[in-house]
Amino acid sequence: MFQVASYETYEDGQVIFTEGTYGDWIYIIDEGAVEISKEIDGRKVVVGILKEGEILGELAYIAKIPRTASAVAVGRTVIGIIDRNFFDQEFNKLSGDFQKMIKMVAVRLKIATETICQAKLKGS
Amino acid sequence: MFQVASYETYEDGQVIFTEGTYGDWIYIIDEGAVEISKEIDGRKVVVGILKEGEILGELAYIAKIPRTASAVAVGRTVIGIIDRNFFDQEFNKLSGDFQKMIKMVAVRLKIATETICQAKLKGS
Repeated sequence: MFQVASYETYEDGQVIFTEGTYGDWIYIIDEGAVEISKEIDGRKVVVGILKEGEILGELAYIAKIPRTASAVAVGRTVIGIIDRNFFDQEFNKLSGDFQKMIKMVAVRLKIATETICQAKLKGS
Repeated sequence: MFQVASYETYEDGQVIFTEGTYGDWIYIIDEGAVEISKEIDGRKVVVGILKEGEILGELAYIAKIPRTASAVAVGRTVIGIIDRNFFDQEFNKLSGDFQKMIKMVAVRLKIATETICQAKLKGS
């Protein structure tokens, strides 16, 4: 599993990060679950619920963009903060081409998620 | 730009790769455009049109999965095939953790694209 620098416990409803803010820590869910949501036209749209072993926050890290969604604990949740030194070393040793490729995938996922949220809003 | 091993020219409507097949070359559009589509319940759904400078085929490469969509030239299109030796060296020097993170992003993009196609089909 991922090299974790430290663990944090969040209570139900507690915000891990908020859409649009700056921050590029990457988290892994150790126990519990996390709701990922976006705000579209002032309305909250749930993207999905992440479970144990899933990571979050990686898009901001990879693409060097603000948080693309909000993350909130569902029930008491233990989150591992992935060791940044380790990940930065990995990222920085990649060529510009490879970085560009994975950034493009991250940006495409951001756009696809926005499209899904807009469709959900229309359908609701 | 990306290190290109060779260039290939495709005529309008010519298939670059087909959804579900195995292959993990990564391509960059040098001239022209490429239609990306998926087949859902026997019906073709267009995911989008990629333009000059955009890459395609990267999901199969990153996630080590079959082609998640079909790619067809729109008009006469010149495609650069990205140097695989170079990319493999990059990929293989990444830690298992980092590989796992970018695979997770690729799989999430695959799932998001499927969701969008299903929504498009319902809405059509």
